[in-house]
Amino acid sequence: MKKTILSAIILAASTTITDAQTKKPLYLDSRAPIEERIKDALGRMTTHEKIQVIHAQSKFTSAGIPRLGIRQLNMDDGPHGVREELEWNTWKPAAWTNDSVVAFPSLTCLAATWNPDLSALYGNAVSEEFAFRNKDIMLGPGVNIARTPLNGRAFEYMGEDPYLAGRMVVPYIRSAQQNGVACCLKHFALNNQEIDRFAVDVKVSERALREIYLPAFERAVKEANVWTIMGSYNLWQGVHCCQNDSLLNGILKREWGFDGAVVSDWSGVTDTWQAATGGMDIEMGSYTDGKLKESEYTYDDYYLARPFERLINEGKIPMSVLDDKVARVLRTMFRTSMNPDKAIGNQCSEAHYDACRRIAEEGIVLLRNQKDILPIDASRYGRILVVGENATRSLTEGGGSSELKTLRDISPLEALRSLYGEKIDYAKGYDSGRPLYDHVDKVKPETLARLKAEALEKASTADLIIFVGGLNKNHKQDCENGDRESYDLSFGQNELIAELAAIQKNTIVVTFGGNPYAMPWLDRIQALVHCWYLGSESGTALTDVLSGKICPSGKLPVTFARNQNDYPCFHYGKDGYPGNGKEVRYDEGIYVGYRHFDTRGVKTLFPFGFGLSYTTFKYGKPTITADGNTWQVTVDVTNTGSREGKEIVQLYIGDEKSSIDRPKKELKSFAKVSLRPGETKTVTMRITEQDLKFWDETSHDWKAEPGKFKAYVCASAEDVRGTVGFSYQQ
Amino acid sequence: MKKTILSAIILAASTTITDAQTKKPLYLDSRAPIEERIKDALGRMTTHEKIQVIHAQSKFTSAGIPRLGIRQLNMDDGPHGVREELEWNTWKPAAWTNDSVVAFPSLTCLAATWNPDLSALYGNAVSEEFAFRNKDIMLGPGVNIARTPLNGRAFEYMGEDPYLAGRMVVPYIRSAQQNGVACCLKHFALNNQEIDRFAVDVKVSERALREIYLPAFERAVKEANVWTIMGSYNLWQGVHCCQNDSLLNGILKREWGFDGAVVSDWSGVTDTWQAATGGMDIEMGSYTDGKLKESEYTYDDYYLARPFERLINEGKIPMSVLDDKVARVLRTMFRTSMNPDKAIGNQCSEAHYDACRRIAEEGIVLLRNQKDILPIDASRYGRILVVGENATRSLTEGGGSSELKTLRDISPLEALRSLYGEKIDYAKGYDSGRPLYDHVDKVKPETLARLKAEALEKASTADLIIFVGGLNKNHKQDCENGDRESYDLSFGQNELIAELAAIQKNTIVVTFGGNPYAMPWLDRIQALVHCWYLGSESGTALTDVLSGKICPSGKLPVTFARNQNDYPCFHYGKDGYPGNGKEVRYDEGIYVGYRHFDTRGVKTLFPFGFGLSYTTFKYGKPTITADGNTWQVTVDVTNTGSREGKEIVQLYIGDEKSSIDRPKKELKSFAKVSLRPGETKTVTMRITEQDLKFWDETSHDWKAEPGKFKAYVCASAEDVRGTVGFSYQQ
Repeated sequence: MKKTILSAIILAASTTITDAQTKKPLYLDSRAPIEERIKDALGRMTTHEKIQVIHAQSKFTSAGIPRLGIRQLNMDDGPHGVREELEWNTWKPAAWTNDSVVAFPSLTCLAATWNPDLSALYGNAVSEEFAFRNKDIMLGPGVNIARTPLNGRAFEYMGEDPYLAGRMVVPYIRSAQQNGVACCLKHFALNNQEIDRFAVDVKVSERALREIYLPAFERAVKEANVWTIMGSYNLWQGVHCCQNDSLLNGILKREWGFDGAVVSDWSGVTDTWQAATGGMDIEMGSYTDGKLKESEYTYDDYYLARPFERLINEGKIPMSVLDDKVARVLRTMFRTSMNPDKAIGNQCSEAHYDACRRIAEEGIVLLRNQKDILPIDASRYGRILVVGENATRSLTEGGGSSELKTLRDISPLEALRSLYGEKIDYAKGYDSGRPLYDHVDKVKPETLARLKAEALEKASTADLIIFVGGLNKNHKQDCENGDRESYDLSFGQNELIAELAAIQKNTIVVTFGGNPYAMPWLDRIQALVHCWYLGSESGTALTDVLSGKICPSGKLPVTFARNQNDYPCFHYGKDGYPGNGKEVRYDEGIYVGYRHFDTRGVKTLFPFGFGLSYTTFKYGKPTITADGNTWQVTVDVTNTGSREGKEIVQLYIGDEKSSIDRPKKELKSFAKVSLRPGETKTVTMRITEQDLKFWDETSHDWKAEPGKFKAYVCASAEDVRGTVGFSYQQ
Repeated sequence: MKKTILSAIILAASTTITDAQTKKPLYLDSRAPIEERIKDALGRMTTHEKIQVIHAQSKFTSAGIPRLGIRQLNMDDGPHGVREELEWNTWKPAAWTNDSVVAFPSLTCLAATWNPDLSALYGNAVSEEFAFRNKDIMLGPGVNIARTPLNGRAFEYMGEDPYLAGRMVVPYIRSAQQNGVACCLKHFALNNQEIDRFAVDVKVSERALREIYLPAFERAVKEANVWTIMGSYNLWQGVHCCQNDSLLNGILKREWGFDGAVVSDWSGVTDTWQAATGGMDIEMGSYTDGKLKESEYTYDDYYLARPFERLINEGKIPMSVLDDKVARVLRTMFRTSMNPDKAIGNQCSEAHYDACRRIAEEGIVLLRNQKDILPIDASRYGRILVVGENATRSLTEGGGSSELKTLRDISPLEALRSLYGEKIDYAKGYDSGRPLYDHVDKVKPETLARLKAEALEKASTADLIIFVGGLNKNHKQDCENGDRESYDLSFGQNELIAELAAIQKNTIVVTFGGNPYAMPWLDRIQALVHCWYLGSESGTALTDVLSGKICPSGKLPVTFARNQNDYPCFHYGKDGYPGNGKEVRYDEGIYVGYRHFDTRGVKTLFPFGFGLSYTTFKYGKPTITADGNTWQVTVDVTNTGSREGKEIVQLYIGDEKSSIDRPKKELKSFAKVSLRPGETKTVTMRITEQDLKFWDETSHDWKAEPGKFKAYVCASAEDVRGTVGFSYQQ
């Protein structure tokens, strides 16, 4: 008979529990290799649990595996800040009070800075807000190419050039993901218009696809190792991009080696078989959003839910297909929601407002400045009249999924008033109605007439007019789910600006907007400042530039054409844009943006890469050195003006003789350099063999042809400051 | 002129960001001492930010400091599992689908196990569910003493004895907090009834307060270092406990050294000055819950919001008072929401169901077993009739704040059917209506008559009747915000049981409930099993005991009296219970529970500490050894029956001669020992000087008087198996 001494005082319990805790299963051991953890977790999951994690469980989350202690994925729009919290399964705000954030500048503004350091600053700051809001995946950034100036979502992207977009997106993603927040790069691919976005099959040449529409995505995958990517609504080769085997499995996963999860755009999946076999990993937003009642359609009815589970159970699709998706989802979870090093982040910190302001200030582009009217010499003006709705309108509202609920925004009028005080008067001038997602809130003609009359009356006694207008986030302006209907500014702004300028020659025009627009009044005004969307520090950044506190240094990431029809997408009738509702033909091929204007000598209002400064820069003669098949182009840049400023030096390459038609020159490098008055810096930019290549549709591969090339050192696509030739030998 | 070489290819950005991240401020450095971090954070906060963190911002969260990256506190009921997610500022469910959890057994059940290892298991498991639900503070456990058998929330507490409650609560808290989830010990203090809970001023002797009502709290603070504690609704010494300077600052913080945050019960704060100066740290739930419109009353109107900020700004209350509160809140955040080692947790894991079942099985108390009718020998019965609503009713619904949304529960009827199959028939027997929070859903007399008739008819052809009834979570049963109106079982159960037993002598009664009740039918039934509330594994645990798979080993943590009026709180008319609406007098003093029944020889149905087994235990003669003023009592316990079982050996101490009236004996130690048939184990239990003390109202301190004491080794408060005397010298 065994005797044991028990002590009732000593509690054995804590030991027991500690032992249990240290015996962590492999998949929960964050020090173990991630691929082993994935394999371990997969081995513990039932088929049903695997199915659960590859589709939505609410508007913005996909399920975890609670039983196994594997956390769900919390997603949110994106890309300019964290969207307001919504109810579990509706599009209605959840009415939380802890979800007010900083609105960062639009990505077009970031592109206009041509400053990769600011891109890293942006990615870090915005992802800290996502982390603090307990989000694992931020739905952004977007790198779709600006093919048409009417695209309702162009403001969310990074312009018309694949090199600039790719170069700028990499540090953004790296910084964000360092915080344990996954970027969801969007919209993959060819989502270049909002009209018929769910329906159009994009007919694009293989070469244009590879040279124009994919490179920024490719770079994000290969250089930034982006963790998730969002399939687009449109079709390619007759198949929706969210379930397009060639695109997702062929190019993205096999060719580029993408190891993360493909997330569908909300309701982007339309077919179980295609989604299952076509590379879709997480299906989001399928039709439960009021189109059908909850009782009629649930998350279990998603294409990748019960219908897929049935195909798996019937053996019609092998388990390996499901396992691959789940492995990608688990990989994403281990990188984000399960990542012990995920940042805590913060929200609305001074550092974030500071980042917001710095990006906004460097993204503002000074397009015209007659007689150095800018920076404003306030002593010269008794009364300054601010005209225009965008001086007071919140441009963080509206626009679609990128709409933000902000803690505090500073409007242009507020900032100008705080700087110039009593001198400032304001007239709205025009009105555009409320920012509604899917329809235009028509403003009565008599209202517009009254507002205009008021503005003109005040203009007659003003010494300086600052018109603040442009586009906004209304439906059919810069807003998801619709494109602009005209290249012109709306709401009577053209007439208003012209009449203001006729009354007072000292008229400065400030425009917000994510797209170029027509400027029939350009010659009549003294100065033009384009601001994209600047976010919470809008007014501060603008005023810092207008007042001269900051020397403008942004340059255009898109060509501003004189007329809408100068853009090549309009050269092929409706077939070219917006298509016939079923397909849209990209018949301009690779000649998008400056590749078209520059090669064909079409005059622009302002070319790609253009932007003025309050100082001036002189370029030396460029030189080139070769090291095998890499080259270094070197050029001295001198600040020849009287104040410190930053210049964006651009390097374009042209193929002197080619077996196929190629653009005159294409951007292959750039550097942003800060110079004190009189200072000279030597800028070195590198060219690699890849930079010389075009996509060869015969070999289906990149190809560089031996021969002569020319390097163009430019201040804009039209402003060549020097060239230097070099030869390429295979 | 300075020349610099810039490379446009090498991205300096990532370095910049990494540097910024490593330069963490002190308060964010989790390796720095917590008190230094608190000081650093305090120094960065504005007065308004300090005010923001000491009151609610939603129904179940208090604000963080987003700007500084300090996370909010997410709280949730508590204590038997994580409550369903509610909308931000209403009591309506948020309709999430990821918030279904395990319902763990009620804390009364846990107390009935007398097994501190299970308490640790419970704390670990339930806190893992809180962690996985992203909660920082779990609103529980509760250790209010069972003074009256009618108390609507007694089921949430741990019985009538301060030693048992204290001993059991410590491992629960330690385990939970090891996971980075704060326990919020409740309700501090003297919240012993639900009637007039917002209004009654509890008149209690200093000695009863110290000897009966506070010790479990004190132990949780001193031994388990509980991180938060919830103030109760009622008053003490004329002041609400949520703002009671003597209680919170005097006893809790200064005397016991509590360094955490005092959280108010929801709407427990009623006065700014008192809350501010009276030790309240986080005000929750004040009147925004529909009593006033949002537009009329906001979180800024909370007593510790704007009104307190005004007093601080006017210098009427010193900043140090605010800083102390904020320091306590920050300390809680650093321990929980900001804790990098906080567990990920899991939800509805097999380990949690297993914990649930083990606790339930050991908490079930076998009270009567005539002719060894239990465990059921199924071969003896052709038809087994189950009668009673609790065989199918969900007892995880209702009850108030402890209500749970569960993933899967197994009811007694399901479990019995799965074990005995076709033999099982069922009749509901009675009906109690829906579990509503604030009123009784009256059932028509004709419905009750019909249900009873159906049951009696089926009973006439049954070979065994298992009646499954008792209390439930209806209003005025075991439910928050109301007490029972009678000591009897409701809904006609007494008559029904009596008539069933008259038809079939093989009648087993199973009761659920958090309180004792009258049993006028006790002599007529063969067996009685009391189950408390068992949670998700209810049916499994019960069936395991009934079938003999598990040998019952729970013992009562409360005395089951023969009549309601045998409980001393009923000896003083309404003044003693429930009071006059303004005050309630605890005139019975320390004579609560067995201290009354045992000392005064009042017969019980079943005494405190009582519970049968399927085996029998023989106790040897206890011996005692002294080491200065600690003693060890040793006793051999032998399993004299034919199956393995567990015995709870209880050690009570009596003061043989005292200058003041003392109970005959009081529980001071226990041990639960598992014994195979024939096995003997030696149980050792320790007595310290503190165990001999009473609270001396003259010196306001604990006091032990030299002289003779007796140690009682017992199987229940009435079943003394041996005594041994010893002497105490100062």
